Amino acid sequence: MDVAVYTGKADVRAGILVTGTEVLTGIITDRNGPWLSERLRELGVDVEGILVVGDRPDDVLAGLRWFESEGVQVVVTSGGLGPTADDLTAEIVGRFRGREMVLDPELEQSINAILNRLRGRFRNVDPEALAAANRKQAVIPEGAAVLAPVGTAPGLVVPPAEGMGGPVVVVLPGPPSELKPMWSVAVQTEAFGEAIAGAPVLRREMLRMFGIPEAEIAVTLRAAAEAGIDLSELEITTCLRRGEIEVSTRFSPDGADAYAALKQFLLERHGDDVFSPDGATIDAMVASALVAGGWTVATAESCTGGMLAGRLTDLPGSSAYVLGGLVTYSNEAKSAVADVPAATIASVGAVSAEVAEALADGARARLGSTFAVGITGIAGPGGGTEEKPVGTVWFAVTSADGRKLVRHTLMPGDRAAIRERSTTVAMHLLARIIAGDGEPR
Amino acid sequence: MDVAVYTGKADVRAGILVTGTEVLTGIITDRNGPWLSERLRELGVDVEGILVVGDRPDDVLAGLRWFESEGVQVVVTSGGLGPTADDLTAEIVGRFRGREMVLDPELEQSINAILNRLRGRFRNVDPEALAAANRKQAVIPEGAAVLAPVGTAPGLVVPPAEGMGGPVVVVLPGPPSELKPMWSVAVQTEAFGEAIAGAPVLRREMLRMFGIPEAEIAVTLRAAAEAGIDLSELEITTCLRRGEIEVSTRFSPDGADAYAALKQFLLERHGDDVFSPDGATIDAMVASALVAGGWTVATAESCTGGMLAGRLTDLPGSSAYVLGGLVTYSNEAKSAVADVPAATIASVGAVSAEVAEALADGARARLGSTFAVGITGIAGPGGGTEEKPVGTVWFAVTSADGRKLVRHTLMPGDRAAIRERSTTVAMHLLARIIAGDGEPR
Repeated sequence: MDVAVYTGKADVRAGILVTGTEVLTGIITDRNGPWLSERLRELGVDVEGILVVGDRPDDVLAGLRWFESEGVQVVVTSGGLGPTADDLTAEIVGRFRGREMVLDPELEQSINAILNRLRGRFRNVDPEALAAANRKQAVIPEGAAVLAPVGTAPGLVVPPAEGMGGPVVVVLPGPPSELKPMWSVAVQTEAFGEAIAGAPVLRREMLRMFGIPEAEIAVTLRAAAEAGIDLSELEITTCLRRGEIEVSTRFSPDGADAYAALKQFLLERHGDDVFSPDGATIDAMVASALVAGGWTVATAESCTGGMLAGRLTDLPGSSAYVLGGLVTYSNEAKSAVADVPAATIASVGAVSAEVAEALADGARARLGSTFAVGITGIAGPGGGTEEKPVGTVWFAVTSADGRKLVRHTLMPGDRAAIRERSTTVAMHLLARIIAGDGEPR
Repeated sequence: MDVAVYTGKADVRAGILVTGTEVLTGIITDRNGPWLSERLRELGVDVEGILVVGDRPDDVLAGLRWFESEGVQVVVTSGGLGPTADDLTAEIVGRFRGREMVLDPELEQSINAILNRLRGRFRNVDPEALAAANRKQAVIPEGAAVLAPVGTAPGLVVPPAEGMGGPVVVVLPGPPSELKPMWSVAVQTEAFGEAIAGAPVLRREMLRMFGIPEAEIAVTLRAAAEAGIDLSELEITTCLRRGEIEVSTRFSPDGADAYAALKQFLLERHGDDVFSPDGATIDAMVASALVAGGWTVATAESCTGGMLAGRLTDLPGSSAYVLGGLVTYSNEAKSAVADVPAATIASVGAVSAEVAEALADGARARLGSTFAVGITGIAGPGGGTEEKPVGTVWFAVTSADGRKLVRHTLMPGDRAAIRERSTTVAMHLLARIIAGDGEPR
């Protein structure tokens, strides 16, 4: 569910065309389309849609023509620039923009230089066949601006042929690690700049909440409008992710006052649940609080099996405050590596407040950290009982200065969802104990 | 890069329309489009494309009309069925198919019953406002088949009004946990069955490789064609994921012999690198080998920070063979919880063969497992040196019967990519030592 109050169309619009049978069939997940959408929105360009098609030339051309018929000024394509015969995007875009395909000798040289550097990293490769396959990548629509390859594939900015009209096409390779740096070059080309001239600069603000249902935000937004806040200049999107609600709002400079009023309204009404008024993630907040205090953290995980430790170490620089963790999947491991008394497990069961607390204490003692988190639960699909159904998870956070928070949840969803949401609940409890919350022991 | 040799169009085609500003702007990642695409392909229905649009009625309608103009027999929509005023998919589809919107009293009752069960799970909620918001979900196009709600939103199968022609529209909610079960009901409706009548049944086969560059597959496919294997009936897609190459092939019953010949050719040419001729994942292969032998595993991770343990416990039933793990992010933790001698770290550094091996041995000793994995490396962005640049990762797997494999890699990519690929390398080394490989110690 989401709430998009702003329904006008910006002056400058774009379409995003993602090509690749592997994307269309779900073998890989497209992340380029949404990423490009976000970048275009930052430039004040409204995105008409993201279209994913397979590698068939007819489908790619049909997609380009559809965006043209919708009147967009820019189409950005991703994929289909590889060395194989079926990577045809450049040629199709050339045809679409009325431009002949020509070999660019300078580009051919630079691709060859890249290939020579890559050679040797692999065994059993036929260098002749590879060079021939890659030569194709140097054939480009005449008059296109070339974006230097990050991998082996060059990108292109292809304006319509003289007198033709219609969108400029930005042609980018599929791998995100190549597409992203090339995008920042593409936006600086003259053809792109002319195509988006007149787009307003938009701001995006984010606010994060934890602990209320998403439907409640819809009710709050209606109340805000009734209270006289002008939402017409705001594009508000809400989304539930890993158990948190994100409220994202986009607006032009004219909407800044309205956003300030809306933010104030949300804080007054849901202050307890807004943990991040400025969009910072709970992960970043925990990290900066630990760094600021010179504190450290350790984990002891059962049902999440290391995912919380993995999440805590996602951020660069986390070695400053993550000492380590224990993954205690079996009962024996809980006792052997985290010093949970076997008698406790025998009397109250592994999924219990007592074991969660003992896990946290065991991690803190073994690793010598300021704070520790213990998690034990039933992620399913098996292992549930009437008393402790699948989704029952106990959490404990404890501190070296004698405080604790022990909570449990009954989570909906499948095994993966329960495990992922459990890491979110743990991050929020950790943030609270770092902030000084918790019962004395 | 990918290779799609098969370029014909099936008789029955479909379009997928994903709605939601939060999807278009990348706040959440669409997984419904690719999932539906795969399901449609299984039914022999060719997918024209996946189109993602925001919540603006005009854009949703334009998307529906585009698929109609492309001549598809089915459009499947995802999203826009929530309780808020801007969730408009049902109404737009009604208009598109020439059907009036009517209140379905039976549906209203069943939605209310669901809401009554949900109430009480949250605090501070206005029940009146929620009920009003949800009543809207019981207003549906006249003559549509209703798919019972899994959450609160019903799905719909909406055929064109009498005498109108054009595609049947299957309307599904956005949350994947609701969409998936409702899809299996949708495909059994009469209207859907009629729309896809005549579609051929396709098979998909997958083969996984590890250790060769993706470009090499393109060369191999050309060689297969030159060797007389008829690839015209096969739709072959290759993709690089987490360091492995997946070769996915789709074919109708007529293509079965060609696929058998291609598979044979691939095995002869790349036998050493094909670890999975039948598409099983390395994770599943490791799991079943451990179960079959009655063996157990433990981990000690530095740069991957628990991600390998998290990956090993992703699978249901992993408690049968995963005892636990140690996350030893700091040098002190390596010594304190995994018994790595501080002198070893001081003399050869934390990122070294010796420390990887000591980590594995420490995990095995502490947790009492048959096998253990030690990982230590530099995931970046900081911490690299000329001698040990970012991407340097050492791996050790050891067994209780005195074998070991110790390897290192220099991985490309950013912090997240290095960490993720490291778990793949570790899984492959683990598979090898389970299979009996490794040097005696």
